[in-house]
Amino acid sequence: MAKVNVSIPQGTRDFGPDTVRKRNYIFNTIRAVFEVYGFQPLETPAMENLDTLMGKYGEEGDRLIFKILNNGLDNPDKLGQLKEDFEKVLQGKNVKGITERALRYDLTIPFARYVAMNHGTLTFPFKRYQVQPVWRADRPQKGRYREFYQCDADVVGSNALLNEVELISIYATVFAKLKIPVDIRMNSRKVLTGIAEVIDEPARIVDITVAVDKVDKIGVDGVKKELREKGIAEEKIAMLSDLVFFKAETIDAKKENINADKLNFIKNSSFYSKSAILREGISDIEYIVSQCELSGIDNISIDLTIARGLNYYTGCIFEVNAKDVKMGSIGGGGRYDDLTGLFGVPNIPGVGISFGVDRIYDVMEELKLFPAEVHTGTQVLFFNLGENESKAAFTLMQQLRSGNIRCEMYHETVKFDKQFKYAEKKNIPYTVIIGSKEIEEKTCIVKDIRNGHQQTVPVNKLTDFSFI
Amino acid sequence: MAKVNVSIPQGTRDFGPDTVRKRNYIFNTIRAVFEVYGFQPLETPAMENLDTLMGKYGEEGDRLIFKILNNGLDNPDKLGQLKEDFEKVLQGKNVKGITERALRYDLTIPFARYVAMNHGTLTFPFKRYQVQPVWRADRPQKGRYREFYQCDADVVGSNALLNEVELISIYATVFAKLKIPVDIRMNSRKVLTGIAEVIDEPARIVDITVAVDKVDKIGVDGVKKELREKGIAEEKIAMLSDLVFFKAETIDAKKENINADKLNFIKNSSFYSKSAILREGISDIEYIVSQCELSGIDNISIDLTIARGLNYYTGCIFEVNAKDVKMGSIGGGGRYDDLTGLFGVPNIPGVGISFGVDRIYDVMEELKLFPAEVHTGTQVLFFNLGENESKAAFTLMQQLRSGNIRCEMYHETVKFDKQFKYAEKKNIPYTVIIGSKEIEEKTCIVKDIRNGHQQTVPVNKLTDFSFI
Repeated sequence: MAKVNVSIPQGTRDFGPDTVRKRNYIFNTIRAVFEVYGFQPLETPAMENLDTLMGKYGEEGDRLIFKILNNGLDNPDKLGQLKEDFEKVLQGKNVKGITERALRYDLTIPFARYVAMNHGTLTFPFKRYQVQPVWRADRPQKGRYREFYQCDADVVGSNALLNEVELISIYATVFAKLKIPVDIRMNSRKVLTGIAEVIDEPARIVDITVAVDKVDKIGVDGVKKELREKGIAEEKIAMLSDLVFFKAETIDAKKENINADKLNFIKNSSFYSKSAILREGISDIEYIVSQCELSGIDNISIDLTIARGLNYYTGCIFEVNAKDVKMGSIGGGGRYDDLTGLFGVPNIPGVGISFGVDRIYDVMEELKLFPAEVHTGTQVLFFNLGENESKAAFTLMQQLRSGNIRCEMYHETVKFDKQFKYAEKKNIPYTVIIGSKEIEEKTCIVKDIRNGHQQTVPVNKLTDFSFI
Repeated sequence: MAKVNVSIPQGTRDFGPDTVRKRNYIFNTIRAVFEVYGFQPLETPAMENLDTLMGKYGEEGDRLIFKILNNGLDNPDKLGQLKEDFEKVLQGKNVKGITERALRYDLTIPFARYVAMNHGTLTFPFKRYQVQPVWRADRPQKGRYREFYQCDADVVGSNALLNEVELISIYATVFAKLKIPVDIRMNSRKVLTGIAEVIDEPARIVDITVAVDKVDKIGVDGVKKELREKGIAEEKIAMLSDLVFFKAETIDAKKENINADKLNFIKNSSFYSKSAILREGISDIEYIVSQCELSGIDNISIDLTIARGLNYYTGCIFEVNAKDVKMGSIGGGGRYDDLTGLFGVPNIPGVGISFGVDRIYDVMEELKLFPAEVHTGTQVLFFNLGENESKAAFTLMQQLRSGNIRCEMYHETVKFDKQFKYAEKKNIPYTVIIGSKEIEEKTCIVKDIRNGHQQTVPVNKLTDFSFI
């Protein structure tokens, strides 16, 4: 075998036919639901101006943005200028001389940039969805890639909680269509802010949410340990834990309405009367949960431990996990106050969700949920048995193709064996054979190579044959 | 209005909802035909190793490749190393220290790299299609972008001319489905090579093809002038021109079979007996044209002026132009001898075609060919008339959505006027209004805002209503 001396960059992937089809099945399912909910597609360029991206994802994020080299590196005429520019870079002055563009790091900032640029002509609320790759210079590891797709839907220009209800309903509908059993959990940043207020640590809200968010990974004791390390007093940790980590079952385990029990528990807690913002958060949650239950969504639950990491969320937050599969969340999102302020257009609030397509793919593989129809390869291989025979076969094949049957003709006249082997390797279920006898009789032989069954079909009846 | 201080990189574009939908109409039409012809989807990463791309597109191409900066530019610990590396770059030694990855420049080299990496496991002939963006640091101008989609289909691992016939048939089918009247023109590099041989300038084949290829832009006299400037003798130019630029009509203008006339003209010319490779090219063309005509393709014509620029083609070449629209070619392709030799895997021949999606889009806009169904925005806006009313509306809306009707509910309770205006701005054709009276009567009011017609429909009949 020849020596191949090529590879692809670490953390990137080729997607062969089978994988593309499975991924498209997921994307198309999600897209169709977005459309039914009145969301509209948007696509932004892979490259953004470096200024648009830098400073939006924290220091770590800035480092992980893939920057594009300005032109001229290979142009001897420009090397002098580049050298000067690079000296400036080395002095920490700026990097503009050598890079002014970068690959998008997520879909939210480009969306914000788009809304800021076009807010004069958009109709608000503006509901967009976007399914495109993003790039991060993260250290590649299992399940973490340097190029991966994000799949987002956002409504901007509206404070109405109806939007939260609709987005949760999109989650419920998409995962029902994909047949993935899920838990949709919700919380509100307002509640977390309220808790920080009540324990008199309002400035520690970030430390608290970051720690609480890790409960799935490090457990309740781990969270407590981290809070202790952050210097939060033991009695405050105890207060917070009682509320955040309670299990409804331990209180009043009427299985049929755990959400109501949780709401009651919170309302009866000492926190409730002490914080207006917490009460606001609880009221939001109560409305959303009741609306969801009204429309038949039975897999939404209130969970004060979800925090959505360091994100810019300010209101309700969501997280979706697949049941019975050990894996991180396969979806998440939340409400934010101000999408475009960073770009000079203040007061555009919004709420959005995201689907983790790589993880959804893995869950569907693990649970064997991809339907057989996803494998939409060639249905019929026409054998090539000589010049005249292949002409007859070609004419017939074109008729089937007009009826949207996926066909191929073997590319050259070779032994039956070789043509059968090609069909087998490519999982083509049917072969159609036309020899000189069949040309004379105006027939062809249709063989189902899955079971070996074969039959003679008049050529004028072939388009009626069911190739499934 | 707020001051917006953001933009997108020169030569890139945002695609809003309407444009995305029109582009997807084109992509989906093409993809569906590829599938019916047994082609399978492939996706490769946006980034390739710099080594994979450099040296494949000529010197100019190397310069136009967007290179990605290695990480560490913003990391003070690594700046020392970067400085050393940059010194090497300035000395022309190598650029690896600062860039090792680049954005793909076309889909062919990544496909070749994929085939080289996977040739041990692929089933040949391997028929793949690929629809992905590419990036070029070209000077942006009308119709030329720095990010644009390519849309390619290739068969590799087969010398059979059947593949050429199928690819032409794909062109004919796609453009018929898009309703774009086109001319599909074909030639063979073998014929051009033969001509260069016969005029005793075999080494000038590149100069000749480059010049001839420009005939659409600079005319026959322009081509002759260019050949003269390249130092080709006047009598050789005359010989060549007689064959390449003849018009069948000037010889024996039986309109009904110009291809046959052209073939006869070439076969009767002094070139035919003098060059084996020219005869081979003509024989290929003859077979392909006859097979195409047999399967009802009536818009294919032989044209010895097409050359496909500086490409790596070695056999048949194709070019597609829209009739009655002043624009460059909207498709092109051809046969090549050796796809993967550069990557250490020799002897994989192939043939491929490409669709110029941006130009196809412009042609369809100019000829107004996008069907009305492309505008698949929201079909129904449910009015929001209060808490109870919106609950009733929401329940009803969810029933319509289950039946794949695209619906929205106005996000807040406001005056009728404002809700109507929203529907109008978004071109939503229907509104459904449920007030307290309708709740009581279990009805709703359906209004077609295109003609103002409205009717009262029982809520249990709404799913039967035709929202078109």
